[in-house]
Amino acid sequence: MELYTYFRSSAAFRVRIALNLKGLPYTPQFIHLLNHGGEQHSVAYKQLNPAELVPTLIDGNRILTQSLAICEYLEETHPEIPLLPSSPLDRAWVRAIALGIACDIHPINNLRVLQYLSNELAVTDDAKTGWAQHWIKLGFAALENQLAGDARTGLCCLGNTPTLADVCLIPQVFNAQRFQVDMDAYPTLQRIATHCQSLPAFSTAAPAQQPDAA
Amino acid sequence: MELYTYFRSSAAFRVRIALNLKGLPYTPQFIHLLNHGGEQHSVAYKQLNPAELVPTLIDGNRILTQSLAICEYLEETHPEIPLLPSSPLDRAWVRAIALGIACDIHPINNLRVLQYLSNELAVTDDAKTGWAQHWIKLGFAALENQLAGDARTGLCCLGNTPTLADVCLIPQVFNAQRFQVDMDAYPTLQRIATHCQSLPAFSTAAPAQQPDAA
Repeated sequence: MELYTYFRSSAAFRVRIALNLKGLPYTPQFIHLLNHGGEQHSVAYKQLNPAELVPTLIDGNRILTQSLAICEYLEETHPEIPLLPSSPLDRAWVRAIALGIACDIHPINNLRVLQYLSNELAVTDDAKTGWAQHWIKLGFAALENQLAGDARTGLCCLGNTPTLADVCLIPQVFNAQRFQVDMDAYPTLQRIATHCQSLPAFSTAAPAQQPDAA
Repeated sequence: MELYTYFRSSAAFRVRIALNLKGLPYTPQFIHLLNHGGEQHSVAYKQLNPAELVPTLIDGNRILTQSLAICEYLEETHPEIPLLPSSPLDRAWVRAIALGIACDIHPINNLRVLQYLSNELAVTDDAKTGWAQHWIKLGFAALENQLAGDARTGLCCLGNTPTLADVCLIPQVFNAQRFQVDMDAYPTLQRIATHCQSLPAFSTAAPAQQPDAA
């Protein structure tokens, strides 16, 4: 498999973790989101990914986009080490946590949105940081509330084994730290992040460990 | 089942369609997102949905949040009329279309984001409409490109039977029309939307048909 990735992209980070958790080797192809006006906008990459976003996974002659669709695909084609629990209710819980991050936090703070705030709406750097912090704090407060209050929460978001929820949470915690969000307000999320970051599948997927990290 | 819904919410609209497609009856509970400072922020509703967003589905004593997690749950618990095709590659394609809308278009144009633009960043109404149009057009251009260029596209996003992709597309087309996006630029999306809107599962789920429509 080949993964089109950028070290700092939360969405690519998710797929790197998922591939690692499942023990699936892959060849990275680096798409720099800032250099050359954004390599994701090149004609060649747009053929693979019309939305001009990372990641894209190539599996043989199959082209796959959208990080969570890729993770579900990996789950269905390589079920041996599962990213989702077995009961529909637990699966819905894990997916709700994953989507709470992937829909309601991350896209609002994405590079292209921050660029639009600067370039089109003349929003200052301080107000842009305030914007990012606002959506992260709002999402994390809800998530902390959900996870701290649920008996299913363990070392990970569900029990003691990483799931799709942790696959999404850990990149978002990295992103929160970039925006100087104080994680002390979210002790359960911080505890889970610390645990997961100690696991090789997560630590080797981290932005700073990628060959394309500047 | 009980569905906490708001007529104009795209996310609630998705679940209304999914329930209708599967022929599952439900009792609506109305959460007005503007009245009383936003009923989604009430203490009682926050108990069900800590993110203070609609929809929430109650199935017996189970509380389910996040529209796509709810749809996947319905798919697993009521598989008779499927929302997803059978092959992993087609499933990934359908989920990528759904997530391209649910992650990369809708959350950026959500009510709470538009409110933040006005209230915190003093963005004018015109610039706010421009913002919404920008993200819808960007997402729809990519989606049109994907669907027009793929042999699997039929009356619906995949073949001739509605899937999770259409469940997400049709509410987003409604939303685009609210923001005066010219759908002529997206003939494939418009054609699929016109077809789906002729089906009772979609038409009875439409915002104007809901008892809480003002």
